[in-house]
Amino acid sequence: MTSRDGYQWTATTGLRQGVPSISVISPPTNVLSTTEGWDVVVVGAGYSGLTASRDACLAGLKVLLIEARDRIGGRSWSSNIDGYPFEMGGTWLSWGQPHIWREVSRYQMRSELEPSFDFSRGVNHFELRTSSQGSSIFSHLEEDALLAGALQKFVDVDGAMGREIIPYPHDAFHNPAARQYDNMSALDRLNGLAQSLTPHERAVLESFILLCSCGTLETTSFFEFLHWWALCDYSYKGCLQHLISYKFKGGQSSFAIKFFREAMATGRLSYAFNSPVQSIDDHGDRVVLKARDGRQYSGARLISTIPLNVLSSVTFSPPLSPERTAAANIGHVNQCVKVHAEVASPDMRSWSGISYPFNKLAYAIGDGITPAGNTHIVCFGGAHNHIQPEEDIDETKRAVENMSPGNMDIKRLVFHNWCKDEFAKGAWFFAPPQLLSKSLDELRRRHGNVLFANSDWAVGWRSFIDGAIEEGTRAAMTVIEELRQLHAVRSHL
Amino acid sequence: MTSRDGYQWTATTGLRQGVPSISVISPPTNVLSTTEGWDVVVVGAGYSGLTASRDACLAGLKVLLIEARDRIGGRSWSSNIDGYPFEMGGTWLSWGQPHIWREVSRYQMRSELEPSFDFSRGVNHFELRTSSQGSSIFSHLEEDALLAGALQKFVDVDGAMGREIIPYPHDAFHNPAARQYDNMSALDRLNGLAQSLTPHERAVLESFILLCSCGTLETTSFFEFLHWWALCDYSYKGCLQHLISYKFKGGQSSFAIKFFREAMATGRLSYAFNSPVQSIDDHGDRVVLKARDGRQYSGARLISTIPLNVLSSVTFSPPLSPERTAAANIGHVNQCVKVHAEVASPDMRSWSGISYPFNKLAYAIGDGITPAGNTHIVCFGGAHNHIQPEEDIDETKRAVENMSPGNMDIKRLVFHNWCKDEFAKGAWFFAPPQLLSKSLDELRRRHGNVLFANSDWAVGWRSFIDGAIEEGTRAAMTVIEELRQLHAVRSHL
Repeated sequence: MTSRDGYQWTATTGLRQGVPSISVISPPTNVLSTTEGWDVVVVGAGYSGLTASRDACLAGLKVLLIEARDRIGGRSWSSNIDGYPFEMGGTWLSWGQPHIWREVSRYQMRSELEPSFDFSRGVNHFELRTSSQGSSIFSHLEEDALLAGALQKFVDVDGAMGREIIPYPHDAFHNPAARQYDNMSALDRLNGLAQSLTPHERAVLESFILLCSCGTLETTSFFEFLHWWALCDYSYKGCLQHLISYKFKGGQSSFAIKFFREAMATGRLSYAFNSPVQSIDDHGDRVVLKARDGRQYSGARLISTIPLNVLSSVTFSPPLSPERTAAANIGHVNQCVKVHAEVASPDMRSWSGISYPFNKLAYAIGDGITPAGNTHIVCFGGAHNHIQPEEDIDETKRAVENMSPGNMDIKRLVFHNWCKDEFAKGAWFFAPPQLLSKSLDELRRRHGNVLFANSDWAVGWRSFIDGAIEEGTRAAMTVIEELRQLHAVRSHL
Repeated sequence: MTSRDGYQWTATTGLRQGVPSISVISPPTNVLSTTEGWDVVVVGAGYSGLTASRDACLAGLKVLLIEARDRIGGRSWSSNIDGYPFEMGGTWLSWGQPHIWREVSRYQMRSELEPSFDFSRGVNHFELRTSSQGSSIFSHLEEDALLAGALQKFVDVDGAMGREIIPYPHDAFHNPAARQYDNMSALDRLNGLAQSLTPHERAVLESFILLCSCGTLETTSFFEFLHWWALCDYSYKGCLQHLISYKFKGGQSSFAIKFFREAMATGRLSYAFNSPVQSIDDHGDRVVLKARDGRQYSGARLISTIPLNVLSSVTFSPPLSPERTAAANIGHVNQCVKVHAEVASPDMRSWSGISYPFNKLAYAIGDGITPAGNTHIVCFGGAHNHIQPEEDIDETKRAVENMSPGNMDIKRLVFHNWCKDEFAKGAWFFAPPQLLSKSLDELRRRHGNVLFANSDWAVGWRSFIDGAIEEGTRAAMTVIEELRQLHAVRSHL
């Protein structure tokens, strides 16, 4: 099946919208009558919605899963092209991420991981370009030392590498002193350190921060970066392991489909894809969802997994609280541009590079060998020097080529433009200063019979697939308990 | 409620068997008729059995949970004495343990952890005693450096601190080269290193290995130690974090009871405590369990969480495979002796010590301050110099006092003798050489309608609570899927 989402470019086909993916669900709906009513309506088929739907189905509830796109996975999905998976969004996972790993273990997929890095051949080095005028070459050990040193200076606010400020990564405001760091931007922190960073350190550090937030240094909350650091065991080695090292051999969609299929196997899952939501009305005894196509669906409860940046596009009745509305209007800052390039020959498999700040893509690594024997390079850019990659494909190619001039004979580009995606309006969540300390509790709060579940307001691996599963689990558990009690009360009457 | 399990000694009461615990379930059974038959019978109310029972109940199955003891938790349970929790068995957890952390998150208990270590006051050092003739005193930083250095020599079989031999901690035989290390004992490995270890390094290293296995150096599989090391992020810092740093403020039983209560809330959990199992007969269409009290219970499936060292005490029909029987007869080697001592004054809160090999307890740390303002010290011994702590309480007190002569004015002792416990026959699983490479797959295999779930044969955090939840999840998922299909087929006929 081919999704409407995503773009592919080759010299022979030119730019085309839509890429093949096992995440596309066909037929797009199994709902025969919208009048039946469900126990719970789940809005969004990303990992939050898949988890919530699956758990609710397993618990015996009648579930309707409604999704704007033609596919599952939300901001994490993979396209398989000629037998090779390209990760269009969320990619990496690790056994240090508890909610996703519990599912990997449960689906017996522990042996289906592979490493992104393979520092064994060809152009086996790290290339740092701080202007278009040349490259500095480092061994990967030197790359690690450079980044680790710079990061340690950046995070060491307490003489304990952040451990005193965030002693519990899954309870990040445990120490109230952490809140003050949410008033700071990454730039504020950098400005306080300016004297102690070498130019190379500053360049790689800024690139790494922006690889995490894909905002600008001004719009990146220093607290949230510290939180990532704490989640990554307070070390650069931990950052590598948890953030960018391990992926599914078969792509994320090979994992997401397990949730969907398990829910389907219960016989209790109704679903409707291609169904963007217009409004959600809580009538007290039931919640009525109206899709843009005019269809209405109702449930005793509704779980909204609509991302923060999209929340204000749906009309809620009663209206959302002023605090939640304000947070949604501020939104998160991640404007990631992720571009896969297949480049001729396997020589670049062991290469990594940073081209910053002059280039439209900042960070890239060799990520695999395609069936054609070429190198798969994955490149990241963001708000600091933004492009819409499909608007000017030659500019996008130049941005890839600029990562390592002379080494990028581009055979194929694959990408999804998350920033222009009306159902995402950005990539993974990253907070601007003050958003979390002011609004996290509110974003997690229910609104009558409507519950909100999204990685954007997870407390642990917020922004990650892990956080999405954390949130889907939380919402499903609440609904399951409430409806069980409701049924028990009703059967007593 | 007071459990039959555990012992307590104070000067005024002397030694008494049985300690108070919220893990004791009253009434001990809610089964009115044993003839009704269940979808699934779960044997054992440790974390494997609790997880399997809860998941099956949530999925709508009728479950019978049968347990030999008067309490839940198996090898992990806590006694609360005068408002202070003493962990009788499995204690520590971390957010790097995915299955347990998913449950901590799900039950919203992230804020209910506290650290064991508090290096802030009083006798704030590490005390190493290699004979009864004196102590060497180190700062805790020196303790860390000593242990980290020794451990790195021990595990560095590949020049990569074990990362090449076990690149995936949750898929530990991924690299077939790992198997050869299961032919080695810890002693074999130590003998190969003898020249490179200082006497202090050797003493702390042996103590640390034996703290993990509680066997002897000869009976400790070097592979399994490497596996623990890999699970702990290949670092001493990771070992500290994952193995011994964080515990529940309210004790393990405050966590275990959540599983039990959630299963009960479904209205589908039957249970019978004080019901040791005599035999398990698989009749093909149902499995019949006979308890020692003569009662019989039957289910479409049975999940046995009976630990490896106890498996041969139950008669199976058809008989277990020769391979499984052989593994059960070999058993695991952990003969842990864990003794809590409340010692006068808070001065020892920041102390840690090793007294090895001459003493009957080898490793101890200050673990808390009791309501009376005394220090809670937790001490560990094992097979290398074994005691049965209740048999000669004066010898046990001397073993505690020998950890730090002059500093242990003992007010209270609390412990459970796992080695004489007929339903455990040892503490957490630790493998002798060859057991895992020969038998792990067989131990994980089903036997007709009987499934086996225990941390003893988990693939990830084997031996840990995490592994128990991993296994309970696996077994429940299998049973839920099979019975759903069975019901679907039946309703078609």
